[in-house]
Amino acid sequence: MQKRYLLNESELPTRWYNMLADMPVKPMPPIHPGTKEPMDVDGLSQIFARECAKQELDTEHVWIDIPEPVLEQYKYYRATPLVRAHGLEQALGTPAHIYFKNESVNPLGSHKLNSAIPQCYYCKQEGVTNVTTETGAGQWGAALSYAAKIYGLECAVYQVKVSMQQKPYRSSIMRTFGATVVGSPSMSTRAGKDIITRDPNHPGSLGTAISEAIELATTTPNCKYTLGSVLNHVALHQTIIGLEAEKQMAMAGEYPDVVIACFGGGSNFGGLAFPFMRHNLHDGKTTRFIAAEPDSCPKLTRGEFRYDFGDSAGYTPLLPMYTLGHDFKPANIHAGGLRYHGAGVIVSQLLKEGMMQGVDIPQLETFESATLFARTEGIIPAPESAHAIAATIREAKRCKQTGEEKVILFNLSGHGLIDMAAYDQYNNGDLINYAYQPAK
Amino acid sequence: MQKRYLLNESELPTRWYNMLADMPVKPMPPIHPGTKEPMDVDGLSQIFARECAKQELDTEHVWIDIPEPVLEQYKYYRATPLVRAHGLEQALGTPAHIYFKNESVNPLGSHKLNSAIPQCYYCKQEGVTNVTTETGAGQWGAALSYAAKIYGLECAVYQVKVSMQQKPYRSSIMRTFGATVVGSPSMSTRAGKDIITRDPNHPGSLGTAISEAIELATTTPNCKYTLGSVLNHVALHQTIIGLEAEKQMAMAGEYPDVVIACFGGGSNFGGLAFPFMRHNLHDGKTTRFIAAEPDSCPKLTRGEFRYDFGDSAGYTPLLPMYTLGHDFKPANIHAGGLRYHGAGVIVSQLLKEGMMQGVDIPQLETFESATLFARTEGIIPAPESAHAIAATIREAKRCKQTGEEKVILFNLSGHGLIDMAAYDQYNNGDLINYAYQPAK
Repeated sequence: MQKRYLLNESELPTRWYNMLADMPVKPMPPIHPGTKEPMDVDGLSQIFARECAKQELDTEHVWIDIPEPVLEQYKYYRATPLVRAHGLEQALGTPAHIYFKNESVNPLGSHKLNSAIPQCYYCKQEGVTNVTTETGAGQWGAALSYAAKIYGLECAVYQVKVSMQQKPYRSSIMRTFGATVVGSPSMSTRAGKDIITRDPNHPGSLGTAISEAIELATTTPNCKYTLGSVLNHVALHQTIIGLEAEKQMAMAGEYPDVVIACFGGGSNFGGLAFPFMRHNLHDGKTTRFIAAEPDSCPKLTRGEFRYDFGDSAGYTPLLPMYTLGHDFKPANIHAGGLRYHGAGVIVSQLLKEGMMQGVDIPQLETFESATLFARTEGIIPAPESAHAIAATIREAKRCKQTGEEKVILFNLSGHGLIDMAAYDQYNNGDLINYAYQPAK
Repeated sequence: MQKRYLLNESELPTRWYNMLADMPVKPMPPIHPGTKEPMDVDGLSQIFARECAKQELDTEHVWIDIPEPVLEQYKYYRATPLVRAHGLEQALGTPAHIYFKNESVNPLGSHKLNSAIPQCYYCKQEGVTNVTTETGAGQWGAALSYAAKIYGLECAVYQVKVSMQQKPYRSSIMRTFGATVVGSPSMSTRAGKDIITRDPNHPGSLGTAISEAIELATTTPNCKYTLGSVLNHVALHQTIIGLEAEKQMAMAGEYPDVVIACFGGGSNFGGLAFPFMRHNLHDGKTTRFIAAEPDSCPKLTRGEFRYDFGDSAGYTPLLPMYTLGHDFKPANIHAGGLRYHGAGVIVSQLLKEGMMQGVDIPQLETFESATLFARTEGIIPAPESAHAIAATIREAKRCKQTGEEKVILFNLSGHGLIDMAAYDQYNNGDLINYAYQPAK
């Protein structure tokens, strides 16, 4: 009974899949908030590494070569295993075949390193000396801290204040990798001061932290901003996940009927789903794609499709997205990586066209699912990833009712070892569900 | 530039290597503390699963088949990668080739699962319903909690009190896997009460926790005690590490001149070292074997070779070992898994014969080494494993002086993600070295 499907170094994908270039209907462009004109590479390069800005707008090249030095770094931890979850299947008594892509064995604990490495690599190539970013749960911040260290870049991270308090050890990890960590909203930026002045107890969100990081980047010489999700180039880098999974599913002699990932801005979802989606586009496959979001932060299931800012202060370009409003203040759920008001541009377009769907999951169901997964598969999942597990379990139970032997593939985007305070609360019965509270 | 050496499922070792049967000079037997007679399988089976007791005394079979169901469980996470530490080499500017066996990608975060699975499997086969154990840092307790869940056994863990306070999240992990966790010394056993009565502030040690767990096992129907290190059968199960590493080093076209592991009771050291040691015994190899222990708990470098108890209360058989005395109270270093007064029987015999050596490392040097390793290899190591890294760095620096291209292989026995409070202390300059304080 095979459990894990591995790839040799020589079988690693050497190109990323650029969904943007392959989409029959392109999303609307990012727009400059002042001029209301579409942003070009020069405009985006004010904030991002130029190569990332080019990738962000690249509607021409369906395949983009992974630079050789990035591939060398990938080889430290990739390919990650594809695992058949026999234990979970048995516990559920489902005829479904459940597979997961195990991004949690990545040394930084999540899939985020897949984009942190190329972003820092491009910055280094372009003569940048400092990088900055936001982080929620801290997975992206930890990944960027390490990637910056690889390329000798200084790194400053704005971490969402409530996540910093819930997961203090994640800041310790970033500090151990040599990064400077600041809780957001902070008094160190104009954006942060404005937020604190309006609301002294603001718990922070990815939106506030992005504002602060962008402000730092645009007011510091030789400093670029990096983002861990939402944007096209981030999802592009993450397609390494799905491209590997495709080969590994073939080793298992199966092809997924359903692909599931949790959803914050779209990086782990897009990373797994996009490579499979191209076979729906071109090869007549009919795989269903499900993005699992918190029911207290439901932009996919209850958001509005319109142009909105990616951050709280309104520093980013305007993006066409499903959004709860850039001033939306997410509930203090433990899945800090999913506390974001908007969906990435590509995913928003796909959702609008019905090529994928969203499901929203209450917090308690995510921890119940996470605990079952831990006890049957031996891995404590990140609260974020637990949303994907919960959605998977729903599908698998449906298969039990119908008797269908569906093949379900989900992304275990990260482990939950830094989230044990949340598990403690759950085990003690102190965890609650939060209702969705629309922005005022 | 190859970084990781992986094995396919079909290349997994299917037998453990039994050092005890292969040693030219056998260690003296375990002795019953009452009768002073050598213990036999029946005697040891009072405490341990019968199959483990048989393995403990097996001087006949050099190779022992891994049961098929255990192999099936191993396949969830094994083989673990062998990694060439190019980043660390470059940072040190050493001509040495540094490899590490990465047991930290194991879903429970350390090598301990390798023995937890067979021990619980044998218990289940023999009709046992409850298992109990001690744990220091919590790596063994976490592994046993999950392994017990696989086989439907109830699990109770006595965790060293100071480790429980230093690493609260490790108990959360055990609870998430469904185990009962008690801080040791506790008032729930006679042994615990005796210790607390004599010393109300006793921080606990592996010795106190073993006493409590054994007492629970011997006073509870259908309950067996399991141990995570020290004993022969535990090191036997761990030889899967070295047997894999041997194949992987061959893939890299190298053979280790030096093999290094941290040392608590000997399970990760023996697991990596014994399979290579057989080539010193039989094939004329001259590899050096180095066990790295805390300088505040230096049984290998400053202990006495004699019969001693394995626990504080004197419940275990008397074992011929290098020991600091079973009433030794180790300093509160963060490497909880190394806070143990004695060395396993096989290792003690090998040390006595000069077939291996010990080195002792101060706490601050371990964290300095751990931080360099994290920043160059992207993995935050367990404070225990950091002892092996420190010893490796010493060797690599020596190679830099002499110009020797030695091949160094060390065991990264676990990650340090549950130890971030310790890293915080180190980063804040609050961590200190402890001098060795002999037992009174």
